[in-house]
Amino acid sequence: MSEPAGTPEPLGPAEPVQHGMRIDVVTIFPEYLEPLNVSLVGKARARGQLDVHVHDLRGWTTDVHRTVDDTPYGGGPGMVMKPEPWAAALDAVVGQGPEGAVPTLVVPTPSGRPFTQELAQELAARPWLAFAPARYEGIDRRVIEEAATRMPVVEASIGDYVLAGGEVAVLVMVEAVARLLPGVLGNAESHRDDSFAPGAMADLLEGPVYTKPAEWRGRVVPDVLLSGNHGKIARWRREQAFARTLANRPDLVARWERGAFDKKDREALSILGLAWDEQLGRFRSLVEDVEE
Amino acid sequence: MSEPAGTPEPLGPAEPVQHGMRIDVVTIFPEYLEPLNVSLVGKARARGQLDVHVHDLRGWTTDVHRTVDDTPYGGGPGMVMKPEPWAAALDAVVGQGPEGAVPTLVVPTPSGRPFTQELAQELAARPWLAFAPARYEGIDRRVIEEAATRMPVVEASIGDYVLAGGEVAVLVMVEAVARLLPGVLGNAESHRDDSFAPGAMADLLEGPVYTKPAEWRGRVVPDVLLSGNHGKIARWRREQAFARTLANRPDLVARWERGAFDKKDREALSILGLAWDEQLGRFRSLVEDVEE
Repeated sequence: MSEPAGTPEPLGPAEPVQHGMRIDVVTIFPEYLEPLNVSLVGKARARGQLDVHVHDLRGWTTDVHRTVDDTPYGGGPGMVMKPEPWAAALDAVVGQGPEGAVPTLVVPTPSGRPFTQELAQELAARPWLAFAPARYEGIDRRVIEEAATRMPVVEASIGDYVLAGGEVAVLVMVEAVARLLPGVLGNAESHRDDSFAPGAMADLLEGPVYTKPAEWRGRVVPDVLLSGNHGKIARWRREQAFARTLANRPDLVARWERGAFDKKDREALSILGLAWDEQLGRFRSLVEDVEE
Repeated sequence: MSEPAGTPEPLGPAEPVQHGMRIDVVTIFPEYLEPLNVSLVGKARARGQLDVHVHDLRGWTTDVHRTVDDTPYGGGPGMVMKPEPWAAALDAVVGQGPEGAVPTLVVPTPSGRPFTQELAQELAARPWLAFAPARYEGIDRRVIEEAATRMPVVEASIGDYVLAGGEVAVLVMVEAVARLLPGVLGNAESHRDDSFAPGAMADLLEGPVYTKPAEWRGRVVPDVLLSGNHGKIARWRREQAFARTLANRPDLVARWERGAFDKKDREALSILGLAWDEQLGRFRSLVEDVEE
């Protein structure tokens, strides 16, 4: 099914990027990528840390209806994105780069490997990413196979849910990657205690946070946070993280390694009903219904 | 750290919604939610299937700097979102609904339960969702606790990666929910064979898709898809789904139930190096390095 045509952004001249990362996005909904002008990513672009180009796939169609899809071979519901416009778009994007350079092609798809913080870090180390968000049932497989003969290809899924198209996944991936680029995060933000960051908080969810006033609508901030005792505060936060992870992410608990927890940690875990099971090689709940 | 103020959308009059779902989003970046005017969600709004209201949180600040954040109690990097503006915003949103009605409050946070297709289906059954995307280190915990005394609250995470804020997670969740609402999906789209849909494709990734031309850049469409033999095509697609799932999502393979696979399925799985392990109660790889 054809959509009304959007306005293709003409490809700019092939200027080599001196600093920062280049990102190209090819899509039939260029306006969906407007958030790349806002907030963290918008500021990184303004500072020259990110060089973002959004292209309308329909600029590479050759028929009067600017068709990007057709019926699937083998039958079935839905439409498949045609190979020719995608390949022509990728050819043009590659042609914009420095002689011999190719981007890493990132294809958001529910059939891909999971997009994780680790993959975000991997992608943040590349100089050039090209995103190919699909609509309908996906892109003709041959486009991906042909691209893989000439550039690195990553097919990745942002989560186990179904979206209307890959554009919002591109927004997710670009935001996760951009905040890892040097100089992008301000002082008010930090990588250190992020959930999923490597180190002491690996596989632990962050606990609750509080700010002024100390009493609000009859609710008070936990005493320990007002104590000024940094050791006690760190311990309290860690124990809150244990409780939260156990409540919301039993799958992360199953990944915990015994060596990551000291005696005080294990006491807290025991209060939460968790004990190390030597046979299973993981923490096991002493309460029956904890694993959903 | 304060951001320059955006333009708050004034709250509209309290009209009860007759049809479709009402969605409110409170954010310090209203312009980030522009994609809610585009594509599937934009069309659903135009048809009256979705009634979306985006509000600028700073409209509920009372100081000249329109401050929404402050330093965390207990110290540490980053800023925490103040309770007063959030609570005033939620009060106002609730006040817009029909007498006695409350929304389900959805808070995107990496510390939440996983946002899955199942949760999308649950949320799609509610008449009214209010989203509270945070920035910085999160919202003062008391806001969530107080809200939970008067409305259902769902804290959910769209995946194991770190974003700059919850806005893009709202776009993900709204898109996943909207496409499940009655009448929103057109004929060109379909729920039936979606990855993660319940039924025959549960815990299976979709395999490759192809459309015309039958030969393109020297690459041909697999013969079986041109055969017209529906049984063989269905079997081929299922086997492709097995291979793809094994390659990209060993975690899903570990969830497969033996009863979901017939004799022909098990032959195909055996070719892929998978056999049922009675002791483990799951399919096990006969090849050593398959589980990453």
